[in-house]
Formats: sequence, structure tokens, C-alpha cells
Amino acid sequence: MTLSAAERFARLRLARTEQIGPVTFRQLLERFDSAERALAALPDVIRRGGAHEPPLPPVERIEAELEAGERAGARLIVFGDDDYPDMLAAVDPPPPLLWTLGDAGLMARPCVAVVGARIASAGGQRIARGMSQQLGEAGHVVVSGLARGIDGAAHTGALPTGTVAVLGGGVDDIYPPDNADLYARIAEQGCIVSESVMGARAQARDFPRRNRVISGLSRGVIVVEAELRSGSLITARLAGEQGRDVFAVPGSPLDPRSRGPNELLRQGAILCEGVEDVERAFSTLRTLGEPPTDNPFEGVPDALEATVIEQVAALLSPTPTPRDELARALGLPIGTVAAALLELDLAGRAELLPGGLAASATA
Amino acid sequence: MTLSAAERFARLRLARTEQIGPVTFRQLLERFDSAERALAALPDVIRRGGAHEPPLPPVERIEAELEAGERAGARLIVFGDDDYPDMLAAVDPPPPLLWTLGDAGLMARPCVAVVGARIASAGGQRIARGMSQQLGEAGHVVVSGLARGIDGAAHTGALPTGTVAVLGGGVDDIYPPDNADLYARIAEQGCIVSESVMGARAQARDFPRRNRVISGLSRGVIVVEAELRSGSLITARLAGEQGRDVFAVPGSPLDPRSRGPNELLRQGAILCEGVEDVERAFSTLRTLGEPPTDNPFEGVPDALEATVIEQVAALLSPTPTPRDELARALGLPIGTVAAALLELDLAGRAELLPGGLAASATA
Repeated sequence: MTLSAAERFARLRLARTEQIGPVTFRQLLERFDSAERALAALPDVIRRGGAHEPPLPPVERIEAELEAGERAGARLIVFGDDDYPDMLAAVDPPPPLLWTLGDAGLMARPCVAVVGARIASAGGQRIARGMSQQLGEAGHVVVSGLARGIDGAAHTGALPTGTVAVLGGGVDDIYPPDNADLYARIAEQGCIVSESVMGARAQARDFPRRNRVISGLSRGVIVVEAELRSGSLITARLAGEQGRDVFAVPGSPLDPRSRGPNELLRQGAILCEGVEDVERAFSTLRTLGEPPTDNPFEGVPDALEATVIEQVAALLSPTPTPRDELARALGLPIGTVAAALLELDLAGRAELLPGGLAASATA
Repeated sequence: MTLSAAERFARLRLARTEQIGPVTFRQLLERFDSAERALAALPDVIRRGGAHEPPLPPVERIEAELEAGERAGARLIVFGDDDYPDMLAAVDPPPPLLWTLGDAGLMARPCVAVVGARIASAGGQRIARGMSQQLGEAGHVVVSGLARGIDGAAHTGALPTGTVAVLGGGVDDIYPPDNADLYARIAEQGCIVSESVMGARAQARDFPRRNRVISGLSRGVIVVEAELRSGSLITARLAGEQGRDVFAVPGSPLDPRSRGPNELLRQGAILCEGVEDVERAFSTLRTLGEPPTDNPFEGVPDALEATVIEQVAALLSPTPTPRDELARALGLPIGTVAAALLELDLAGRAELLPGGLAASATA
């Protein structure tokens, strides 16, 4: 099923709505079958949940984003598009959209992420470059974050065979400036990807989302050099949560940049000295990603009773609770509870979390 | 129970008998309760097993070994002596004897082995020295093999707190010559240990036995730098078989000396960057070593029937077989089968192996 232009527009508008995060985005699509219908229902739904003012971004802003993308030669892929990457669709929740510059088809090939320290040793960069070259020659696309150090070396090694750079800012935000040449070559030979709007500068709060895309696109994440508290270890943790393999390149205890990978090894990461370690791990039988769950909203009437919504609201606490537990406690069908939670979330009274969890809204 | 001088003499003589390896040595003590009685029974036993000529070394040679030890200021510890190390007694089979020079009491303290490459990097030697110093300050005695490189650095780091050097040759065999100073300081402040006779030069075939003592004395073995096919990896494997913790210090894939420890990590060794990793592993609850097994020979008559011995011999193959399996197949008590196997072993027709296994003698 190919999405219509109007539906793609609606998905972008829904995704750009301040209060709608990726969990809510996915549930709205499940509840209303399409973004167009979700947008139409939103004012009523929010009012029922106990709030006013539908907080949708104006149509003009969405049109401007699409035009800016077109001018930059970028392509938008929304969740549900035929070329939305399968690996990313299996992530809970999937990113609602991706802007891409270059060859978006690379994301459909088997991807491995290579990430690590910005201030990397010469040896670490040599390892990242060599391993990425090997991975490319073995048919893998190398995904990284275009940062200085390990990321840059990984992209460089995989440039001839295929590499994907995921940015925190817009796909036209060239950062860091030292990597401008590399950026240009990836845009030409590889693929630049971002969830952010065109023209957005990368900010600290963008990196967790970027890291989720890096690991989400990839079957495994290789950490080359990293300090103990670093973005690379966060990417590794996300990869583990997403059911992806986590690899760590060991290093001497004399080098503080080995602490990150060595700690990952202590926690059960797969030791990686070369592409053979990656191939061995990938050849073991496992199910990848979560099977698509049934739509919990099936058969739920469009309009919920206000008393049901208040009953669900009363049970919420700051501790995330599975929605089926709430359903059992209230003796209600899970679909009814899920729909009530969605309305409470849109009204700013609840917070939907991955894995079918919900909590009361944080003040 | 303290052993008499005559019994200690008999144990040394038994241990120095060409055909009697450590498995047979231990079983003879179990079968005859003492080495003196085993020596007295040996001619009959060997004849019943189907061979001639008791191959015992002459009494004079044993006297000469004891005198040489005394001249060198060395002390003999035989299996069963009060100061025979408990950790070593739990090994299957335990080494029948140890010659020691220096403070043999160190072996009764908690020991950790630190081993690795002879041709070690400066960084590797720094790690070995620093880690051994830390281990010593935390109350551990550091055991190693007095080789060049990692071994020497390990002894040096632990010299002020206590270190044990296990040699392939006799305790008076100073090898390698570059470590002569270190040898002298260990003999004075630490302990030199060997299974070999005084004056024996270390030969290649002595090292597996030496490595078994290094790991056998220790609760854990730390491998610092090692090539893939190296004595250090053999020591690590022995340590694993002996139920001891195997630690590996990770290193960069760019250094071939990291291959050994990195491969150990792949196989499940504990990652070790410092003494905290050792302490953490040691603090987990586990049973150490094998519980002393019941004496299988209890109640078995001194003289076995020749037909029983031949029945057991007929069932043996080059594939090691558990003696209780042989007992079941023949419908005989396990003690009878164990005694028959012991006689066949002494006659050179069977080979006793650790873990109660036996095979036909290799041609």
C-alpha cells in the first residue's frame, strides 16, 4: 500500500505537533488507521481528554518544510512509506519520519553502526577505518554519526562501499565544520539522514534521537573507543534495548578511551577484533526486532465515555504501568483503556511510553 | 596426621618412579593407605598385571636428591604433608611433591597467578607490575613462572608483598639468566617452587607440569599479553579445568600480543582492568575445587583374581572411559574395577587419567 500525498502531508504534520512524540504518533495511526483521520478526530479527542486548543502546527509551516527539502534535493520518508527501512520499523516506537540526502536505498541493505569517541587515538581511528572498509567489502552498509574521531573514520573507510550518516540537525546542517568535505562526499556517494527539519542546527537534546536512529537502522553497533560516560555507550544501550547486537573493540586498560568498550564487554557485549566477529554473531539464529503487535484499538468505538477516561486517569502514577494491567484492574477491554490513555496523553494528562506502558504526566 | 620420615621418603621414591604419574601416585596412596605399603606391594601387583621388573628408582638416588635439596637449603613438601597447599591438593591429580626455596608459607595464603608473553610490550609489563602490586597490597600472593616479560614484571611488582615463582627445572636452576637477580630476591623474600629434582635443567616437556602448578596454587589466573598459541593460554585452559577463575586483560586488536587475552574473553574469561575485577569475581559465591572423593578402593581385597584383571583389560579402548561405566558393564564393584585398572596401569597395559577415566595404554 503506497501512501497518498495527502496522507504523507498529514503524517508530517502529526509528527511535527509539539505534544505528539513517536509513541503517540504510532498509536494515533493505529487508532484512526490514517494520519488524515487522526488529524480530523484530534480536536474532539483532546477536548474529551480534558484540554482545549488543538496544538497542530499550521499547514503553511509544513508546506515550508517540504519546499525547503525540495530545494535542498532532500527526500522525505514517512513511517508507512514503501522505502521506510524495515529495521527502523521494528523499533518501538519507530521514528515518524526521516529526511534523506543521497542514496536512501542504502538503508534497505544490511547495516552495521560503527561509533566511538570524538577525541580518538590514531590507533582507534585506524581500527574504525579498517573495520568499516572490511564491513563494506563484506556487503554491509556502515552507519555512523558524522562526529569527529571514530565516526568520521568509519564513514571514510566505508565511503566506496556505502555509508549512512545520521545527523542531529537537519540534513543540510554541516556539523562539525572539519567534516564538511566528508559530508559532501557522503551526500554524493552515501546517504545523509535526519529526523530534524531542514535548516535546524544540531542541539544537545537532538543526539539521543539521532543515536536511536543510528542503532535502529543497524543490526549491530560496534563501539571502538569511548569514555565511560559517552554518547557511544548510550547508543550501545539503545541498540541492546532494540534487540540489536552490541560489539565492543577491546583496548588496553592504560588508555582511558578503552574504558567504555571494556565496560561493555564486562556487561556482555560481543568482543570485536574484525569483521569475522560480526559475521559470526549475525550467523547465529535469532529473531530480529519485535514482531508487529496486534492493533489494540480494533473494535473500539470512536467516542469513549468520559467516566472511562477518568477511571483510567485515576489509576495512573508516575511509575510506568502496562496498559493491560490497568485493563485488568478496571475490568475493561485493553482497547478501551489504550484509547483512553491516548486521549489523556494528547490532553497532556498522561505520558505514553514504549512497550505499551503509561505514566501520569510529569509536571 | 603428620607423615613419618620413612613415609615421606617412600612418597618421594614412588613419585620418582618412571611409570608412576600423578594419577597413579594418588590412586596407589588410596589403594594402600601409605606409600610404604604401596612400595611393598608393588612387585606383586605389577606381576599380577602381567609385567615383570618393578621399575622403582634405587634408594641411593632418592637419598642423593634429599641431600642435594638440603645442601641448597631447599625444603621438600610431599602430598599429605601438613604444609602441602590446600588449593593444590584440590587439583585432580595433585602434584605428588614440591621442592621449595624460601618462604613456603606464602603458598598457604590466597594466591593469584599473573602470566603472559615473554616478548611483552612496555605497556604490558607496566600493567603486570602495577596489577601485581595492587594484588599484593590487597593481600594476594602473586604466582608466576619467572619467564622474561610479563612473568618477571609480575614478580617484581609483588616482591614486597609476597610472590611465588614456579620453575620447570629444579629450584636451583636459574633460568632465564637475565632474571638471575630477580631469582635471588624471590628466593630471599618470596618462594621458588618446582616439582623437578634438584639440578635439573628446564626442558620444554617440563612446562605443562609447571603451568599446572602455577594455576593449581591460584584461585585465579590473569593473562596479560599472549599470542594465540602460547604457554599462557595453556595455563589459562588448565586453570579453567581446575575450576579456577580465568581473567584476561583486554588489548588493542592492532597488537598481536592482545590476541591471546582477547580470545580468552571471547571464550568467557573475566575481563580484568585492575584488582577490582579480581575482587568482584572472588566475592561471588562458588564452591572451589572438587570435594575430596570417597576412596573407591575401600574394602577391596589385596589380591585380585587374574580373570577380573583380564576382563577389565578386554574392555579398554584408546577412548577414555569412566571406571564406573566399566564396572556397570562387568557387573563388578567399582572398587574392584579401580584396583584392576591400577594394576594394569602399573603393568603398562592401561593408562589412568584424571577424573576416574582410563584408556588402553598408548603404544
